[in-house]
Amino acid sequence: MTTEPTAAFRALHHGERPLLLPNAWDFASAAALLAAGFAAIGTTSLGVAAAHGLPDGQGAGREESLALARLLGRLPCLFTVDIEAGFSDDPDEVADLAAALRAAGAVGINLEDGSPDGTLADPGRQQALIATVKAAVPDLFVNARVDAYWLGGDDPSPLATTLPRAAEYVAAGADGIFVPGVTRDSDIATLVDAIPAPLNVLFLPGKHSVERLAGLGVARISTGSLLFRTAIRAAVQTAEAVRDGEPTAAAYTYARIQQLVAGAGAC
Amino acid sequence: MTTEPTAAFRALHHGERPLLLPNAWDFASAAALLAAGFAAIGTTSLGVAAAHGLPDGQGAGREESLALARLLGRLPCLFTVDIEAGFSDDPDEVADLAAALRAAGAVGINLEDGSPDGTLADPGRQQALIATVKAAVPDLFVNARVDAYWLGGDDPSPLATTLPRAAEYVAAGADGIFVPGVTRDSDIATLVDAIPAPLNVLFLPGKHSVERLAGLGVARISTGSLLFRTAIRAAVQTAEAVRDGEPTAAAYTYARIQQLVAGAGAC
Repeated sequence: MTTEPTAAFRALHHGERPLLLPNAWDFASAAALLAAGFAAIGTTSLGVAAAHGLPDGQGAGREESLALARLLGRLPCLFTVDIEAGFSDDPDEVADLAAALRAAGAVGINLEDGSPDGTLADPGRQQALIATVKAAVPDLFVNARVDAYWLGGDDPSPLATTLPRAAEYVAAGADGIFVPGVTRDSDIATLVDAIPAPLNVLFLPGKHSVERLAGLGVARISTGSLLFRTAIRAAVQTAEAVRDGEPTAAAYTYARIQQLVAGAGAC
Repeated sequence: MTTEPTAAFRALHHGERPLLLPNAWDFASAAALLAAGFAAIGTTSLGVAAAHGLPDGQGAGREESLALARLLGRLPCLFTVDIEAGFSDDPDEVADLAAALRAAGAVGINLEDGSPDGTLADPGRQQALIATVKAAVPDLFVNARVDAYWLGGDDPSPLATTLPRAAEYVAAGADGIFVPGVTRDSDIATLVDAIPAPLNVLFLPGKHSVERLAGLGVARISTGSLLFRTAIRAAVQTAEAVRDGEPTAAAYTYARIQQLVAGAGAC
């Protein structure tokens, strides 16, 4: 295994434009997004979990995430895997998973500090977790997620909660910081200024535009579960359109899907 | 295991309206279609295969199809599984798979006579296969697919090829006959008249309407891979819309997907 793919992925966080990272949930969605020209993809933990009948954010999708990474490793493309909070309370087990993902071809992971019970992990524990993972797999872009905005709840100042955590996670070795749920321009600008690592923001339809986030200095914009949630909705809408005698939405052809599976057009 | 679900599924082929059967490829798409009010669902072999990076129609998705059935069995709903040509040349192995699917909760299967090499199976062999499956798992609705129209090719009269095969498959115990690819009204009317079992037609956008197929006496209308192909296209279009600063299509909410995974609203 060379370190070249991770270096290429890292460089995408320092281009003239932010890295727009769409998130796949299975092999077909990944291959289609890569064939459409996106430079790299992520996975969506909600999509991977729901595809297998599992809840998101409850630490249930370890094997499914690893199995997907092993499929994606067949494509000569850059991909990073969302592993929620690591699917384990044991940092060594999380490091083992990270190593297995890197061996499968992943160049990065997302690792969140939101816990299944809806609280934020102890920052010292999270710092130790990040350090353990980076020590075991230095050649993996660890995108450390700070969930103060995402969890909402009673936090009167998610910005004040996020800033020290972000600093601690970067000090522990995190390569990037992901703050899903932040929408206010001034907060985003503060995060960009204060955090000594590329900032990743979750794209929220109607609240963000790539242009505005680019102008604020955001390094990476991911779509999270949006594409998956759109896909499932499109499937149901199409079934309803057939039932009701209405026109159906555009679809790939059967032949195009078979081509994508065969690896055509990927990266 | 009671025979009641299969009886309920069979009855849907004899209602006032045709059974409109949308096809899912993972747990989330299945749960969403069932929650939308469809009385039963099928699976799409293209979707299940492509989701796992496998080609369709090449006999490669046995374990993935069974794994999906085991997930769908958690929902108290009627579902039937597309198993291509059975994923084996050995009728006993196909019967074993059929039994495992029934044990997982499936009420039916689709079994096609198109071979991975693009030719039609010997009709006597296909008859023996159907008889073996029905002997092993009588309580399973076997929808026997005749691929003369679907494979296209050099057949000057797919209708003439289909009719004797359909009769032989019904004689062997098939509960229904599936003729994907047929579009001409007169052919459909002839098939309905000649085949002593419910006729299933694949819905082709722009070529069919549920109303017209209902008027012709079609008993079951399935969407095949259409919903899957639409879903993947919708995902890519949404990623492109985010990139280009255009509005994104409708999506389920995160909370709705989590509810669907928890079984809310299914059947």
